[in-house]
Amino acid sequence: MTPTTRVTLAEIAAEAGVSLATMSKVLNGRTDVAPSTRARLEEHLTRHGYKRRNVAQRTDSLELVFHELEASWSMEVIEGVKDVATAAGLSVALTVSGDRHTPSSDWIDGVLRRRPVGIVLVFSDLARPHREKLRSRGVPFAIVDPAGDPAPDVPSVGSANWSGGLMATRHLIELGHRRIAAITGPEDMMCSLARIDGYRSAMNAANLPIDPSWIRFGDFHPTGGETNARELLAGPDRPTAIFAGSDLQALGVIAAATAAGLSVPRDLSVVGYDDIALARWLSPQLTTVHQPLRRMGEEAARLVLRLAEGETVDTLRMDLATHLVVRGSTAPLAG
Amino acid sequence: MTPTTRVTLAEIAAEAGVSLATMSKVLNGRTDVAPSTRARLEEHLTRHGYKRRNVAQRTDSLELVFHELEASWSMEVIEGVKDVATAAGLSVALTVSGDRHTPSSDWIDGVLRRRPVGIVLVFSDLARPHREKLRSRGVPFAIVDPAGDPAPDVPSVGSANWSGGLMATRHLIELGHRRIAAITGPEDMMCSLARIDGYRSAMNAANLPIDPSWIRFGDFHPTGGETNARELLAGPDRPTAIFAGSDLQALGVIAAATAAGLSVPRDLSVVGYDDIALARWLSPQLTTVHQPLRRMGEEAARLVLRLAEGETVDTLRMDLATHLVVRGSTAPLAG
Repeated sequence: MTPTTRVTLAEIAAEAGVSLATMSKVLNGRTDVAPSTRARLEEHLTRHGYKRRNVAQRTDSLELVFHELEASWSMEVIEGVKDVATAAGLSVALTVSGDRHTPSSDWIDGVLRRRPVGIVLVFSDLARPHREKLRSRGVPFAIVDPAGDPAPDVPSVGSANWSGGLMATRHLIELGHRRIAAITGPEDMMCSLARIDGYRSAMNAANLPIDPSWIRFGDFHPTGGETNARELLAGPDRPTAIFAGSDLQALGVIAAATAAGLSVPRDLSVVGYDDIALARWLSPQLTTVHQPLRRMGEEAARLVLRLAEGETVDTLRMDLATHLVVRGSTAPLAG
Repeated sequence: MTPTTRVTLAEIAAEAGVSLATMSKVLNGRTDVAPSTRARLEEHLTRHGYKRRNVAQRTDSLELVFHELEASWSMEVIEGVKDVATAAGLSVALTVSGDRHTPSSDWIDGVLRRRPVGIVLVFSDLARPHREKLRSRGVPFAIVDPAGDPAPDVPSVGSANWSGGLMATRHLIELGHRRIAAITGPEDMMCSLARIDGYRSAMNAANLPIDPSWIRFGDFHPTGGETNARELLAGPDRPTAIFAGSDLQALGVIAAATAAGLSVPRDLSVVGYDDIALARWLSPQLTTVHQPLRRMGEEAARLVLRLAEGETVDTLRMDLATHLVVRGSTAPLAG
């Protein structure tokens, strides 16, 4: 993937006109070097494609980075990463940083100091300077990406979002529903768009018209489901089924339906997305698209460990399958 | 708390007849020393009350140890610990080990190698040899203890379990219920016993008889609630209200009631315990006892950081208050 060069750190230091000690500090993420000097020395490292060879001093931990911890959702990923790390005799260091797109810049300094065996990131992408820094320190990483579309040369594990949206909608159509609305996640996340496109394709394939007001962008949290469902259920020709885009949004949709005096699934069918551990314990049990979050965490951790061992990995991008789990929140259209 | 001695590691090594290098390896949790030698040298460290003075080489992470990760529950504690750690510029290293009483012995070796600033444990106690090892390495720890009763000299943060059980039951009595059952957690956890004692006191104070079959031990998971509720609801004089002992068990109780054709709260009132993030998003919204899990994590992390700074902490045990949150799963006794 990247050219291996034989230039030593001492040679790069000499070229940059600093001591080896200073160069070493920059390599190890120490903060007692002026920011402008650090930036300049980083450029030298990048230009030479410098890659740390001696990785013996690493701690025995795998780093897992989230932009936010969402209980039911994050825990599945944590469990998957933890299982693989534990089997390899590593601990898992958990950090939370940045926004949903990329971790913040002080995070990267911390990583360089901590020197983990590798990093699993739950983000849609990693900024190029961060990738460059990790590469030069020989710290491999992989992205668990239920959210977006990272660059093709970035190791990542995703899942079949488009198929998920298609299966959810097709299930509702097969139950006889025609007025089907969809609430997806934020508009700037590729997974939201993929799920909605799956919904659209299922509707189009069945020759069902889509009222523009039926397509909604939420936040993947219960409130997003509730707010949008309240509006959807207020109109005269209300939908008889809603694809909620996430299990948490499905909870919000059911809450809005209950508040409007509607019973699920008798008056409204609801399909979630994710299949969180509690989905089968809700009353009614939630029909939902199973997203293999735990396996995505496992595969990302395995990918990082393989890269850490110096293995050549042919396929850097992996999409795991999703499947529909039919439970009690969907029913044939009444009447 | 413990005698400070001035004996050096070199002196202890000389006394034990080993080199300083070997003694150092034991201190740092290295595994290339024979187990019998390690055990013998640990004894020397313990006898002298040796305590590491130079802590400069520590990594910048706070270790958080669980015996199991339960999504809705563990995440609250993680969030609390993370917030305090982040504010102090530390990352959180998450490990899972052992059973609900104490971490396994290989965990302690990992800790000695990782050298965290401090440790927050979600266990009912920490075995004395582990405590001794941590003390001699100068690694402070605190227990987040929703579960048991650690020794009084162990830093820990718990919550008012007895009051929680009392408040939940009193609420049901005030709604007119008389046949009230209680499903608590495992019998070997002190918090289970405390919550049941609170239930008993509320019943006794109201002069209500308790049928022995109404007191049940579950597992704090949905299945425990479901299995016990199915049995409770099968009899002729079924309870009209159930204190479910945890929100997850409450989900199981509601599932069993639904399966039995009973509607919550019309035919059965249900009170949970914990107030997990999803409790207000269930339909009906769950009436529950709020256990301040997040604040418990915060306080435990603060306690560890204070100990790490060498502060003298007067009160090693802290119990945070619980309170009842009345929502939609409880109603006045019909008829």
